Amino acid sequence: MPAPLIDGLQYSNWGEPIFRQMRQGGVDAVHVTIAYHETFRGMVERIEEWNRWFARFGELIIPGRSGDDVRLASDTDRTAIVFGLQTPDPIENDLGLIEIVHTLGVRFMQLSYNNQSLLATGCYEQDDSGITRFGREAIVEMNRVGLVVDMSHSAQRSTLESIELSERPVAITHANPAWWYPARRNKSDDVLRELADSDGMLGLSLYPHHLQNGSGCTLDGFCRMVAESAERYGVEHIGIGSDLCQDQPDSVVSWMRNGRWTRQTDFGEGSASAPGFPPQPKWFRNNLDLTGIAAGLTAVGFDDPGVEAIMGGNWLRFFDRSFGPGQDVPS
Amino acid sequence: MPAPLIDGLQYSNWGEPIFRQMRQGGVDAVHVTIAYHETFRGMVERIEEWNRWFARFGELIIPGRSGDDVRLASDTDRTAIVFGLQTPDPIENDLGLIEIVHTLGVRFMQLSYNNQSLLATGCYEQDDSGITRFGREAIVEMNRVGLVVDMSHSAQRSTLESIELSERPVAITHANPAWWYPARRNKSDDVLRELADSDGMLGLSLYPHHLQNGSGCTLDGFCRMVAESAERYGVEHIGIGSDLCQDQPDSVVSWMRNGRWTRQTDFGEGSASAPGFPPQPKWFRNNLDLTGIAAGLTAVGFDDPGVEAIMGGNWLRFFDRSFGPGQDVPS
Repeated sequence: MPAPLIDGLQYSNWGEPIFRQMRQGGVDAVHVTIAYHETFRGMVERIEEWNRWFARFGELIIPGRSGDDVRLASDTDRTAIVFGLQTPDPIENDLGLIEIVHTLGVRFMQLSYNNQSLLATGCYEQDDSGITRFGREAIVEMNRVGLVVDMSHSAQRSTLESIELSERPVAITHANPAWWYPARRNKSDDVLRELADSDGMLGLSLYPHHLQNGSGCTLDGFCRMVAESAERYGVEHIGIGSDLCQDQPDSVVSWMRNGRWTRQTDFGEGSASAPGFPPQPKWFRNNLDLTGIAAGLTAVGFDDPGVEAIMGGNWLRFFDRSFGPGQDVPS
Repeated sequence: MPAPLIDGLQYSNWGEPIFRQMRQGGVDAVHVTIAYHETFRGMVERIEEWNRWFARFGELIIPGRSGDDVRLASDTDRTAIVFGLQTPDPIENDLGLIEIVHTLGVRFMQLSYNNQSLLATGCYEQDDSGITRFGREAIVEMNRVGLVVDMSHSAQRSTLESIELSERPVAITHANPAWWYPARRNKSDDVLRELADSDGMLGLSLYPHHLQNGSGCTLDGFCRMVAESAERYGVEHIGIGSDLCQDQPDSVVSWMRNGRWTRQTDFGEGSASAPGFPPQPKWFRNNLDLTGIAAGLTAVGFDDPGVEAIMGGNWLRFFDRSFGPGQDVPS
């Protein structure tokens, strides 16, 4: 049986139409962002919303809390939904909330998102002071319960320190190598080598601001970057993390960038003249198009096991070894 | 193998000394109150505290989320801790929090505690208007996810309506029959017959205010009441729910009674001249004394299967059929 198809990050406008489209597109699992700048209580409301969807659309989606949930979804023609947080705001200043959010099904948490957080520095700050005191405690606790450290939006020093401090592999669920396209959100070769050396995972992004030539990036160009990445970091450390924000209104990208932290407008990777979501490349518009990436990988020379590994096999192995309890620590 | 020893309700001053004493006393499972008047967030802090205890005292206690957890605890010489809420305050005005608290391990919730709640009327109110509109929705949702309706502190009409509305058996985890001692918290024969007819469970209380002769109640007197209850309601519907508040300071009974809802002092079952916890009967002071009840039941004529059923076997069967998901409902 081929490996499942897994997308390592989406923040789409969820509901029945996309759930049905994921079935059409053969998407077996997707890591979905359930919260950005929400408090703990606000994040719980997002989970309540997912619980209503799980009850209502049980023939299309199931909770994805383990690799075996992904296998179950794949075997029963459904999509496993893996919860993740793009900022650590939902754990507030409370270490105990790490186990609580894990119990509620959360499996990825970014230590920082663009800005400084209580745990780490984000990639838009001027200075990167590295992992904080609370951040060190949080990494130990995340390792203990099985909540993956995700450094997609973090700054370089914080990212390198997190890889060193974490006893379990770290993920960068959605970013590309800076040597291919030097966006602020893309990652240096140093970071990606350390990530791979520690057996971490890189989810390659289809978000236009992370692509060479932006919305005009070609499938061939993207897949050649995947091939070069596989050569540098090992094919086993690479997956897809499309960062797809399907059917979202532009108000959502503004919430992602601005939360409640500014009275100005922060345009992030956009600009005042292009404040909204950028148009997707025409070969990657929605959840039907993931299979097209697989075809593109074959076209640039990957063999079948390589394509399957990148399109989901690697994420599945990562889920298997990351989502359960780790070594216990004295408490 | 004999049935496990299960206490259907305690609110003791938890920590290592009582965890060790429960092992000495052979207590295999206990339903513990984790919150009274707390908000959702406040209840989560109580669960965080239990999570720290589970990590630290893993050789003494484990989370009790199913009957099988109780069997595991019993087989490995530990105590399974079953979470419960004495008021519905932690679900606030939010139906979705019922599934959330269940996911976090909560297995019992009282629909009201002495006062009117958003769901039902408490036993100290002047008028009992029965199950509310939100209460009807909550019962359906509790049935769906496997959160037991507990009516220990509710008023009569509300209790009868809950038994009728609930498609799954209801529990009165800690109270005695009013025909034995007419305390406001004890239950009428009508209520107890309806409870038994619907296959519900009654946990008999050792709290002095619920006992004939209060702190002076004898073990023989208590056990004769158990025998009469078994005759009236069927031995299979009876367990122990001691309501033991071991080692609690009197400030705790004041919190239980007054929460944040009054500037006066409500003495509940106490009085201005006896505002604190009443002294326990000398034959039931702590977690070593549950086995003494078993001996008392034998002395008044119960056979071994009867004693085992009352001391834990009935609760175990109730846990088995109550804590998992029920019939799904359209959402």
